[in-house]
Parts: sequence; structure tokens; C-alpha cells
Amino acid sequence: MHRFGSGRSTPLDRWALKALQRASVSLPCRFVLWDGFEDPASLPPVATIRINNRRALYSVLWNADLYFGEGYMSGGIEIDGELLAALEAVYRASPIPSKRRWWRAASNGLSSARDNVHRHYDLGNDFYRLWLDREMLYTCAYFPRSESMLEEAQIAKMDLICRKVQLRSGERVLEAGCGWGALALFMARQYGASVRAFNLSAEQVAYARQRAKDEHLDHLVDFVEDDYRRASGSYDLFISVGMLEHVGPHDFPTLGRVIARSLTPNGRGLLHFIGRNHPMPLNPWIRKRIFPGAYPPTLAEVCSEILSPNGFSVLDVENLRLHYAETLAHWRRRFEAASREIAGMFDETFVRAWQLYLVGSQAAFTTGWMQLFQVVYARSTSNAVRWTRMGTETPWASNIARS
Amino acid sequence: MHRFGSGRSTPLDRWALKALQRASVSLPCRFVLWDGFEDPASLPPVATIRINNRRALYSVLWNADLYFGEGYMSGGIEIDGELLAALEAVYRASPIPSKRRWWRAASNGLSSARDNVHRHYDLGNDFYRLWLDREMLYTCAYFPRSESMLEEAQIAKMDLICRKVQLRSGERVLEAGCGWGALALFMARQYGASVRAFNLSAEQVAYARQRAKDEHLDHLVDFVEDDYRRASGSYDLFISVGMLEHVGPHDFPTLGRVIARSLTPNGRGLLHFIGRNHPMPLNPWIRKRIFPGAYPPTLAEVCSEILSPNGFSVLDVENLRLHYAETLAHWRRRFEAASREIAGMFDETFVRAWQLYLVGSQAAFTTGWMQLFQVVYARSTSNAVRWTRMGTETPWASNIARS
Repeated sequence: MHRFGSGRSTPLDRWALKALQRASVSLPCRFVLWDGFEDPASLPPVATIRINNRRALYSVLWNADLYFGEGYMSGGIEIDGELLAALEAVYRASPIPSKRRWWRAASNGLSSARDNVHRHYDLGNDFYRLWLDREMLYTCAYFPRSESMLEEAQIAKMDLICRKVQLRSGERVLEAGCGWGALALFMARQYGASVRAFNLSAEQVAYARQRAKDEHLDHLVDFVEDDYRRASGSYDLFISVGMLEHVGPHDFPTLGRVIARSLTPNGRGLLHFIGRNHPMPLNPWIRKRIFPGAYPPTLAEVCSEILSPNGFSVLDVENLRLHYAETLAHWRRRFEAASREIAGMFDETFVRAWQLYLVGSQAAFTTGWMQLFQVVYARSTSNAVRWTRMGTETPWASNIARS
Repeated sequence: MHRFGSGRSTPLDRWALKALQRASVSLPCRFVLWDGFEDPASLPPVATIRINNRRALYSVLWNADLYFGEGYMSGGIEIDGELLAALEAVYRASPIPSKRRWWRAASNGLSSARDNVHRHYDLGNDFYRLWLDREMLYTCAYFPRSESMLEEAQIAKMDLICRKVQLRSGERVLEAGCGWGALALFMARQYGASVRAFNLSAEQVAYARQRAKDEHLDHLVDFVEDDYRRASGSYDLFISVGMLEHVGPHDFPTLGRVIARSLTPNGRGLLHFIGRNHPMPLNPWIRKRIFPGAYPPTLAEVCSEILSPNGFSVLDVENLRLHYAETLAHWRRRFEAASREIAGMFDETFVRAWQLYLVGSQAAFTTGWMQLFQVVYARSTSNAVRWTRMGTETPWASNIARS
């Protein structure tokens, strides 16, 4: 960390601080340089942003989207006060793009997809165990009541998904991107489904296979360490939770074709994903440090690039944005409680990067910059679809959680 | 009617019949000319299509989308057998467009919108009373159970809408396109809401106003005979049921702006509309004879042209396609029972046109060519949204219907 390595601030440094302040005029934050120089904030500040060295100052002025995160993780930038409130203010002050930006992510081919997954999901099961729930679910939970505990909410999420697609005993499920296997095991254990679950993360698959064996569910659940695009066979359900964000717009048509070739005529499916209201690239710092290759799609993109061209109709959509904000609040509390241990596994920079990523994500959901969509679909020609939503809700989820 | 006015069929007529048969090779229908000449069907036929004169023959060969309907309504074309099954076969045999067609409807300005509405909705309350439910709802019903009666299902639909948007006593509702006023009156009577409801149909507004007076609800419900685009003021809810189909893509941004200027910061809204999976013009015969200016949008168009650009997030979508097929089955039974009376009010051609429109619509819904979407939305920045869907369903709707 280079907190105090820049000597006294020069007139140029002070001009740069004022320029930064002006560029972020609607932010309720106080900016302070390493030697204590500050420009008065125009709004009552919710936080103080301390810029601890010259490098942090000029790089943020150059490209705040990328270098705010870089500065924060290195300690070149520190925030006193409410980081969540400060980031929420950033999102609220940012203009929402009103036109589609014709930006396209690079294609995530089979090998780059594997690299991207490896960089995030193979950080070690021991790391994720420190702050995820008991079932190791690293996706938005569903809180039946806002005061529900995380363990209960993750089980309620899995059950909500099974009910939305009307999962029945003996049905064959293709799961694309299965994490540590909790949902695949849940579908087998609670619903008697037969699941083939794909994942590119070697560490996650090893963990999931061991769980299947320990729980005597390995005759029902097959964990495959491979790209879902290589799946073959015929399935009653195609489920994907938290994977679509890693597909990228270039491969939306491919995903659609895989679903189309995998599902039976009356098959159903569910896509659970972080979404946007406007097509735009993910923040460059998040792409660099946290999720290489990621792109949260809009609902319109999912309809017109994945589902409709492949003959699917949208049956049901639910936006669980505030449930993700709540999930992140739980994860952050657990992460904070384990932060010394995590710093020991990695280092202080890693801890700060992840703190920023988690709190920034929470702010994106509370301010409506990010959405969480669950989309249920079936072939347009299938009339074997749910008649109403009655029975979709899960009042008994809390019982499972306690058992 | 010109059923037998073409003499013996010539070699050219017979060639034309064979060309028609070849063009519709995957249709399980038998084609027969006025003098009994027929080409053997390639599939076991579900219906016989009788072409009763030369004009019907060549016009259908020229443009089946338009002239099948013209021929059917004039009696130049008759169908023996299952008309619904025959039309379902037409839809199933039609290739679904895989690419967006860059087609744009003409703008429905204030005066053409009024003309379009007048031509359909001002056919006379006496006419619609003969085959709609008691509440005079001319939009998709919601059948809590598939065997529910139409009266119950229309009430359940109104209640489902109120629950989805969490309507509360004293809230102000703007309704765009209110038909005969049933929903506006329901929201006032059952929920204590204060409703301002817009409609361009003079006959419908007169009927609705009388009902409000008779039920002593005129202090809560204000029926306005005007275009919703002229609405001013601030509302907690913006509801539109079965109106969006008449807006046309040219005016989607206008609709979005009207919603944006009308809703309070924590306002919610619901759009209930006939939709498509692919952007395409409505069948030209339906546009000519039944719904001038109509265009059923895709969910993607609603998201990216109405909601997102105006700062709204989709909260919830439900596809009630099969409920519309069921609604149409009810309407058709009632229409058939009243067909003599309707022929007396208008003429036989009118009856045949409406029979074809109703059965064709039913076939479009049963085959998945048309969708019925209910979309709940709110400003992206509003966190005063429904936490879960619990309590959205309407188990007690049947009690209201019986009371």
C-alpha cells in the first residue's frame, strides 16, 4: 500500500482534485488528498473519499470506472463512512443510457470460457465456505419474508425454481452451470429428478461429486466437468441459475440452439440471471478483477436473441432485484466476519477488492441499476404448461431449512 | 352470396386449385371447387374447404392472408368440418419468421385512433351484450380452474390485476382504454380506489357513466371520452388492459412518456396485451375487417421501446395465452347461440366475418402464434415494490362471482 508516499500536494494535484470533485458534482462525498487538502463538497457528504497518493488521483481522473476499483483495492483510495451509501449515490447520480450502445463483448469460446470460470470459481472451496450459506449457493436467494435467514432463503430459492417449472419425479434435467451442485442435489433429493449438471470449474465439480456420493444421490445426479454446449441427449427441463451472465451476447444464439435441441416437445426451462434494463458493458474493473467475460443481458435480449428465434415463449418472469441486495447484505456480513482469515489465505488487496465488488453489487441492486430475472419458458407449441401460478409459492421452505 | 355462380370448372380453374393445394401441402384439408372437382389431399383431412366461385379461387391464390377471410365472409369459401382444427393446422403449418421483419405500422394519430376505435367498439352495446359476460369485459379472462365459468373468470381477472399491482384504498388510478368500465368500477367498489378512465368509444363511455351513476360510484370513477395521451395529473397506478394492441409501434415511445409523466415516484403499472414472440404485422384481413390499426407487440418491444427508455423495470410477467383460448371458446359458444339475432342486427356476412375472427383468434392462441402478456412494472428507482408474489392469487374470486 502506498498511502502516504506522495509528499505535499502541488497546485496541479489540487487542480486535479477539484476537477474530480466537479466531475462528480452530484455525489454526496468529500474528497481529501493525502496531505489533508480538500475541496468543500457541494452536498452534505455521506462519506469521505481519501486519495492517498498521486497515482490514485490521476488514474481515477483519467478513467474512474476502472481506476476507482484499482485504487480502492490497493489502498490508494480509502473511504470513511458509509461505503454502501456512497456507492448508491454514485449509481443514482449516473445517467442511465437512454439509447442502445452498440457494444459487443468478445466471444467466450470453449477455452476462454474455461479460463474465465477458473479465475473466479476456482479460488478455493475453503474461501467460499467462509461466507456462503451451508449449501454453497453463490446466486441470488429468495427470502420468503424479508427477515428470513440466508440458509432458509437459499433453500426457498431452489424450491421456488422447482415449483415454477413444475418439476416431477423421474424427469430428466439438464443444468447448465451448477456451482457446487446444491440445486442438482435438491432436485434429485426433494423431487426425485434425474439431473445431468454441467460446470467448467474443476474444484466445484469435485466438491459436488463428493456430496452426491456422500448423500447416496450419485445414481440420480451426474456432474459433468465440461461446457454445457457439449451436452447431448433429450431432457424434460433445461435449468440455468447464474450462468447466463457468463455467456456473453455473442453466444446467446448458441445457448438458444442448445436449449432447443435438448428439450422434449413439452419440455420447460428456467433462466435465472443478473440482468439490465439497458444493454451496456459491465463495469471494466469488475470485468478485469472479478468476472472476466461477463455480461448481464436485458430481458429484451433474452427474449429476442435466445428464446423467440428458437421457438420458445416466455411463460413467466419475476424480478428479484431486492432479494439479491438482501443476499449480498448477508454475504457481506459473513465476509467481514471472516476477513482476517481471508486476508491470510490471499492478501489485504484481495480482501479489499472483494469488499468493493460485494458492496458495489449491493448498491447496483438497491438503486435499480441491476435486475435479477427468473424467466420460465417452454416451446411456443406446447400446451402442457402451468395453468395458473397457484402452488408456486413455498410457504413450507422454512420447514426444510430447519430440518 | 355467390355460391354457385361460376359454371363448370375450366382446366385453368383446376390448375389453380392444384396450385392452391400445393401451396398448402402440409394442411390437412380437402379443397373442392363449385362443381365438385377436387384434388386428393396429401394428408387425412380434418376439414373440407369449398371454393364456391371463381373470384374466391383466384383471389385466395393471389393473397391467401387477405382473401381467405374475404371469401369466407362473403360465402365464396365455406368450410365443412372442424373450422378450429383447420385453422390450427394453418397456424401449425405456417413457418414462424426467424428474423425481425422491418415492418412499421402507420402512426395512429389522435383522429385515426378515434376512427379505429369507433369502427370496432361502437358496433353497439346491444351486440356485445349478446355474447360477452355480465360485466362486459372484452379482454382475456383468467380462469382460476380451467372449468371455471366465464363470469367468474372475468372477475378473477380483474382481481388478479388489482392484486398484482397491490392496489390500496384511496390510491389514484389512470386507466388507459377502459371498455365498458368494469375494471374501473371494480377497483373503486372492491378496493376503494379513485379512477380516471380514458376511452375513445362514445358508446362505451356512455354505458360506463350510467353504470357508475347507478352503482353510486361516480364520486370515485371518472370516465373520460378522450385519448389517454391527453391525460394529465399524477397517479399511483397506470393500468391498461387490452389497449396496447391498438397503439402501434410508432407510438410506443409516446405511451412510455405518458406513463413516465403520470406515475408518482413509487407508482406501479400493469400492461395486459395480446403479444407476439416475433415482430410481424397482424393478418391483413383482421386489420381490414376487424381491427384497423392494430399491432400486437412482442415482450422485447414493450421492454425496450416503452418501459426501459422511460426508466421502468419489469417486475413480473405472466403469459395467459391458454386463458385467452378458453375465453374465446366461451365467447364463440355464446356468439353461436345468438347468431340469428346478430344476423338480424347486421347481416349474414357480418356474422361469418366475426365467426372467422373469433375462431381464428382461438386457433392463434392454442397454437402459440399469439401470446397474452400481463406485465407489471415500476420505476427502476422505486424500492416500494412487492417483496414476493404471495397473496397475488385469487382463491376467493369464485365467491365474488356468486355473490
